[in-house]
Amino acid sequence: VEVVVPFSPTDPKSRLSRVLDPAERREFAFVMLADVLDALSRTRGVPAPTVLSTAELDRDGDALELSRGGDALELSRDVDVTVDDRPLTPAVNDVLASTADPVAVVMADLALATPTALRRLFASDADVVLAPGRRVGTNALVARHPDFRVDYHGASFVDHRAAAAAVDATVSVVDSNRLATDVDEPGDLAEVLAHGAGAAADWLRDRGFVLEADDDGGVHAVRRDA
Amino acid sequence: VEVVVPFSPTDPKSRLSRVLDPAERREFAFVMLADVLDALSRTRGVPAPTVLSTAELDRDGDALELSRGGDALELSRDVDVTVDDRPLTPAVNDVLASTADPVAVVMADLALATPTALRRLFASDADVVLAPGRRVGTNALVARHPDFRVDYHGASFVDHRAAAAAVDATVSVVDSNRLATDVDEPGDLAEVLAHGAGAAADWLRDRGFVLEADDDGGVHAVRRDA
Repeated sequence: VEVVVPFSPTDPKSRLSRVLDPAERREFAFVMLADVLDALSRTRGVPAPTVLSTAELDRDGDALELSRGGDALELSRDVDVTVDDRPLTPAVNDVLASTADPVAVVMADLALATPTALRRLFASDADVVLAPGRRVGTNALVARHPDFRVDYHGASFVDHRAAAAAVDATVSVVDSNRLATDVDEPGDLAEVLAHGAGAAADWLRDRGFVLEADDDGGVHAVRRDA
Repeated sequence: VEVVVPFSPTDPKSRLSRVLDPAERREFAFVMLADVLDALSRTRGVPAPTVLSTAELDRDGDALELSRGGDALELSRDVDVTVDDRPLTPAVNDVLASTADPVAVVMADLALATPTALRRLFASDADVVLAPGRRVGTNALVARHPDFRVDYHGASFVDHRAAAAAVDATVSVVDSNRLATDVDEPGDLAEVLAHGAGAAADWLRDRGFVLEADDDGGVHAVRRDA
């Protein structure tokens, strides 16, 4: 299986603009990518992934570095990076078309991903394995059928299930809250604080984010500025 | 194990007021309860649950009926109902204190619950088994430790994990998106339409709800009035 982690380093996580400034959003996106790569590296039987990036990532010596002004966040020098500046859907479909091997696509913002959760994605031998994301997205998938293609626009989980059926591919769905939790909106940060055990949770705590309950049964990540 | 499903028939699901009128919210809450009870009844090795209701449910003959004006929704006559008009936390803690048996507490708004997902809750033999919900809640749990008590206010998943540790109870967490998806807010309805296979999904479709994507990557349940 080839493992691909799509990543966009340019103005990432724009829906977090209300709580993080642009440099922070770049850092946070990078930290979540590091968590996903770390979880994959500890998942039994899964080969080293390729980061499919929309732009070059800065490399400093053997490592990928976050940004000039940021903390010394580094990706292992073992990480392969392929640059494709097109939107997600055509970039991933080119990967699917370019190989006869199974391809796994794991999103870079799954800050709660663990080897145990990822193992369930790779354990199924269905033609198409889907891990749904919130907001009816598709957070991770494995495609073994040569004719299956992705379409990440809109309700992609529903579309991917239909696309698999259209090519007579068998489908398995991974029922994981960790894989379902992509981090796009301010409300998602509470999940990272509550359930995360990696660099992204640490990063939020270092920036002053804590869990706070409101009077209406809601729980939010709020920032206590130092 | 004793299985308890807390339910509030009085002005339920108030955060859905923007999209459902009061009578519709009562119906929808009842339909989700029916789905949860149905999924439990099909889960191997799980005894018949008791509905822990904050108010009497109308009974018509042998069945529980939805409402005078509503559709003929009925709960099986086999369903036991206990009425306790106190808030959720003390009502559940009284159940925990009243028995030496393990107690499972499964929320009534888990419209995506399936026997496969519920089976994972009951399969663990930890002292405390927690299925987290979105917004850092606790959507289902099994308590086998005599000193464990619940507190559903605020970030209950974090609090329950700490409460289990405080009484030296072993903890297991069920990583299920289906159990994590409680239906409280308009945004949750899209998940029911995409992933639900029960009465709640049918009920939404019958009322004209369909999935619609916006230009910002969001997917919503919107109502097409006839």
